[in-house]
Amino acid sequence: MDIKYLNKIHSPEDLKMLNRDELAPLAKEIREYMIETVSHTGGHLASNLGDVELTIAIHLMFNSPEDKIVWDVGHQAYTHKLLTGRYEDFPTLRQEGGISGFCHPNESEHDTFYSGHSGTSISSAYGIAQANKIRKKNNYTVAVIGDGSFTGGLVYEALNNAGRTDTHLIVILNDNEMSISKNVGSISKYLTKIRSKKRYVRLKAKIERGLEKIPFCGHSLAVGFFKLKTEIKNVIYESTIFEKMGFRYMGPVDGYDIETMCEALETAKSVKKPVLLHVNTVKGKGYDYAEKDPSHFHGVSEFVVGTGESHSSGDTFCNEFGKLMCKMAEMDKRIALITAAMSLGTGLTEFSKSFSDRFFDVGIAEEHAVTFASGLSKGGMLPVFAVYSTFLQRCYDEIIHDGALQDQKMVLAIDRAGFVGDDGETHNGLYDVAFLQSIPNVTVYSPATFDEMKHDFGNAFYRDSDVVAVRYPRGGEKDIPEDFEPSYDSFDIYGSSNAKVAIVTYGRIFGQAAKAVKELEEQGLSVKVLKLNRIKPIDEKAIQSVLDCEYIFFFEEGVRSGGAGEKFAATLLETGYKGSYHLTAVEDCFVKQASVMSQIRQNHLDCDSMVEIIKTRISSEV
Amino acid sequence: MDIKYLNKIHSPEDLKMLNRDELAPLAKEIREYMIETVSHTGGHLASNLGDVELTIAIHLMFNSPEDKIVWDVGHQAYTHKLLTGRYEDFPTLRQEGGISGFCHPNESEHDTFYSGHSGTSISSAYGIAQANKIRKKNNYTVAVIGDGSFTGGLVYEALNNAGRTDTHLIVILNDNEMSISKNVGSISKYLTKIRSKKRYVRLKAKIERGLEKIPFCGHSLAVGFFKLKTEIKNVIYESTIFEKMGFRYMGPVDGYDIETMCEALETAKSVKKPVLLHVNTVKGKGYDYAEKDPSHFHGVSEFVVGTGESHSSGDTFCNEFGKLMCKMAEMDKRIALITAAMSLGTGLTEFSKSFSDRFFDVGIAEEHAVTFASGLSKGGMLPVFAVYSTFLQRCYDEIIHDGALQDQKMVLAIDRAGFVGDDGETHNGLYDVAFLQSIPNVTVYSPATFDEMKHDFGNAFYRDSDVVAVRYPRGGEKDIPEDFEPSYDSFDIYGSSNAKVAIVTYGRIFGQAAKAVKELEEQGLSVKVLKLNRIKPIDEKAIQSVLDCEYIFFFEEGVRSGGAGEKFAATLLETGYKGSYHLTAVEDCFVKQASVMSQIRQNHLDCDSMVEIIKTRISSEV
Repeated sequence: MDIKYLNKIHSPEDLKMLNRDELAPLAKEIREYMIETVSHTGGHLASNLGDVELTIAIHLMFNSPEDKIVWDVGHQAYTHKLLTGRYEDFPTLRQEGGISGFCHPNESEHDTFYSGHSGTSISSAYGIAQANKIRKKNNYTVAVIGDGSFTGGLVYEALNNAGRTDTHLIVILNDNEMSISKNVGSISKYLTKIRSKKRYVRLKAKIERGLEKIPFCGHSLAVGFFKLKTEIKNVIYESTIFEKMGFRYMGPVDGYDIETMCEALETAKSVKKPVLLHVNTVKGKGYDYAEKDPSHFHGVSEFVVGTGESHSSGDTFCNEFGKLMCKMAEMDKRIALITAAMSLGTGLTEFSKSFSDRFFDVGIAEEHAVTFASGLSKGGMLPVFAVYSTFLQRCYDEIIHDGALQDQKMVLAIDRAGFVGDDGETHNGLYDVAFLQSIPNVTVYSPATFDEMKHDFGNAFYRDSDVVAVRYPRGGEKDIPEDFEPSYDSFDIYGSSNAKVAIVTYGRIFGQAAKAVKELEEQGLSVKVLKLNRIKPIDEKAIQSVLDCEYIFFFEEGVRSGGAGEKFAATLLETGYKGSYHLTAVEDCFVKQASVMSQIRQNHLDCDSMVEIIKTRISSEV
Repeated sequence: MDIKYLNKIHSPEDLKMLNRDELAPLAKEIREYMIETVSHTGGHLASNLGDVELTIAIHLMFNSPEDKIVWDVGHQAYTHKLLTGRYEDFPTLRQEGGISGFCHPNESEHDTFYSGHSGTSISSAYGIAQANKIRKKNNYTVAVIGDGSFTGGLVYEALNNAGRTDTHLIVILNDNEMSISKNVGSISKYLTKIRSKKRYVRLKAKIERGLEKIPFCGHSLAVGFFKLKTEIKNVIYESTIFEKMGFRYMGPVDGYDIETMCEALETAKSVKKPVLLHVNTVKGKGYDYAEKDPSHFHGVSEFVVGTGESHSSGDTFCNEFGKLMCKMAEMDKRIALITAAMSLGTGLTEFSKSFSDRFFDVGIAEEHAVTFASGLSKGGMLPVFAVYSTFLQRCYDEIIHDGALQDQKMVLAIDRAGFVGDDGETHNGLYDVAFLQSIPNVTVYSPATFDEMKHDFGNAFYRDSDVVAVRYPRGGEKDIPEDFEPSYDSFDIYGSSNAKVAIVTYGRIFGQAAKAVKELEEQGLSVKVLKLNRIKPIDEKAIQSVLDCEYIFFFEEGVRSGGAGEKFAATLLETGYKGSYHLTAVEDCFVKQASVMSQIRQNHLDCDSMVEIIKTRISSEV
């Protein structure tokens, strides 16, 4: 495509040099470039198409990086990236070694925080604003946040804390009536209501003016009406939730009218207290297919620009889970599903239609999801919370306090457990095993196949008690050997059961371990795999099955520190195991974006690394 | 004291048999009995004195346990306990084997959930209400929640999810203008505002009636005024935040007028959508000393009823921390302190006065506290979040996402790490080591003495990077031997350094280990203690210092699963350690209320248990 503007913009200063009539063509160019790029790389398209003009207005009116712009979640910041010197690197979006799909301070001084979880922007921006105040710096701090994030409690905590202070904080509500799916809950309905008023501020002015005009007929009524007018004014003065929370509310303004947005931002800059500017945008703006199906284009893999079609990802744990829940819910009326704004992402689209009375989208509110599940359980239901591993981190306390402590059933269906690929550091599901392990009364399964997953949910529903988690990876079954005959019990042995070398592992990388066994056997080394299916509690028999091995190699697709491999080691050592033990897991670092397979390789959890590690260790100790 | 009513009330049915004129004397009796009891046992006095009449009204109007009453936090439920068959056991409050200071389903069918953390009640009650709806049960579900909890995001998530549904959910806002300290933030100021209106509902009715009376002078204005009136009505129809969130708002009503509260509850029962009833109460009601100093009497130890005086608890880690922060903040203008409604509990009263511009009480909002700290840090400050271990569980994800990932300094001052005694299961700080261990870029210190704590904060501020946690127990230094000479380094060796038996431990129970060393030495067994000060990362030299020991006994005041003892074992095993290893820690269970020392003993972490375990193990293996 022909690029006329973007190649000349290396910083917001360059943007400011453009004539006002060049901004619309620039916006058009940005959209085309974005669609073109994401059609190759995959990415968060719909939200980024929505806020092109808004981002232009922001960079026109503020001086980044002196003024700090904090993008909530960060997957609405593609235009921001293009305007702050990343036009040339943009085609490397979400690729290994390329630029991040989220904001990333290592990438640019214009990216304030590294962010991929929702609802953090007001809290952190308020922190900067307070620091500026204490240090007597006059710069502005701007949080740009989608309406979807407003279903999360963190946003409310931040509004509550920042409101009615005298900090210079500007919150821009980028309201596209969506989180990832169509937005849910009261606040969303409320926003839709004020969104539909041309300008809420004008309405208030109109009422105020109207009141002034009310004629007084007779003295007896005059005093009463004066009081009444005052009371009405008090009510309308704080007529939005944001005003009640101590923010000055402005808007709604049209998110495609750069002139008006600039005016509004100029006003916002002059207010000496926290301001919330409500901007109306459209998710997927400017690309028909995305406007029509913004959920699909929220996070999309490669697609054909001309048709909007992307390749089907085939059978995945996610889809199999969705089908399984439909089947089980048909047979058991107690089963209810909960999602935190992720019905599509967790495979529950069909369930949400077929069992609408037992399906609950609670918004981006993982904490509430767990505590709500606790209530459903108390009321006699069998609640399942389907959630990505990375977002489950949000409800560690609720799993302890409202789950494990309550002596009642709750099931956690943990999707995207392990590496997630191109979403990078903020989204990897590497902590769930460690943090769930620390909680009493929690059972954890980590199936490697669809069939195992089905059995595990069967156990979760009808055998185990308290909190039961079933965790499964992004994507489908991987390299499962044809001669693997699962017992559907808490563990399996694969390979020659009397081998003196054992690999211990669980979940997706069992496929890698099985391949390693074959390869090592070809090289004359007999190895068995202890494949754990239930990883908490670990079956004592599983431990016994490797006690006579001279070498035990534990491979774990998860953090080493506090993970299953360390626990396994402790049990071995206490049992008096005297052989050699070697643990390979994700070390104390954050794993960067790359393909899942590359992430597995980088962390030495692929077949080749396993073979290498095992051979090296054995030859060094012989 | 003379008991006339309470001994006859074994269930809410008995309460319903009383004449209405017996309710006031009953309330008086409850207060006296509560003050008398808590003066011996300690407990949450102020909040419980405040809601005596409210609780009576609730049990008059609902049929527990068929109707479910969910008490938020649960430390406002003493009257509830007294009215549901626990009068006789009440003197055992918070004692080992006695009744809990919180609600506890094992104790009574009238206690719906076991609850000790704030803000969970609406979520879980909404879950029950939904389950009732699905199962076509017509019972009521009532959440009773203090205004303090409304500073937390979980409450907002629940309101957002439950609002505008047709579930039968009644939320009673017990508004005493306090959380633990005087309440903070916008929502609190907002509540104070509507609290002060005699009845907000009446105001609205008045405005509506007033509008009807506006005379029309001339036809030209008539149409305009009609529209105006409609718009004003729309605005006032949803005039409270709760109405905007889809709840029917009722109140405020006087929390000491049982008759009116019963009427309001009757109305609430008839509404076919979620209702919020706003009740005005006074924390500490009926006991002068508590009304005057409700913060102190929020959670109080034994006191003299006649004077309100309680014994000073002497030098504690908490107080020493507060003094230290004042001293350090004096020297370093960047240091800022954050508390989540716990300025008194975390020892920051003095700091909050002397450094008010660098002190932030964010409300009961631990998630926001961490993300806000991230912003302060980005803005050039040195933020310290002072928080109880049990509440830090709330921000696991924020520590990962807004702390460890951001490549900037944040300090966590973790109070009440380890056993906490009479608050029981929900409050023990047994998980922080395990869950912090799983996070990259986090350093964790666990000092055993005040001086060590000072050095650790020095390191946290000026040596270590990223997230640094210093964790210390409730109470003061315990059994530190006089001959212990701390190195203030990452670990110390106590006892004969060439002993072949080692105890490894950290934090408070070092005192127990030191005593055990003395006792075993008297019995002829030479033992050394490897006392860890920095527990993440563990110093390699610390591990080397015990590698030649034949026996290593790790004692940990924290969960075994995922804790430091398992990690230590893994490192030993990988290093090729061939000796005997024995780990004693808190097993997979919740530790019940008892004195701290008793909890230590029950979990085999006291001197006697250590001696016993070591002797048994050694003799069994010889």
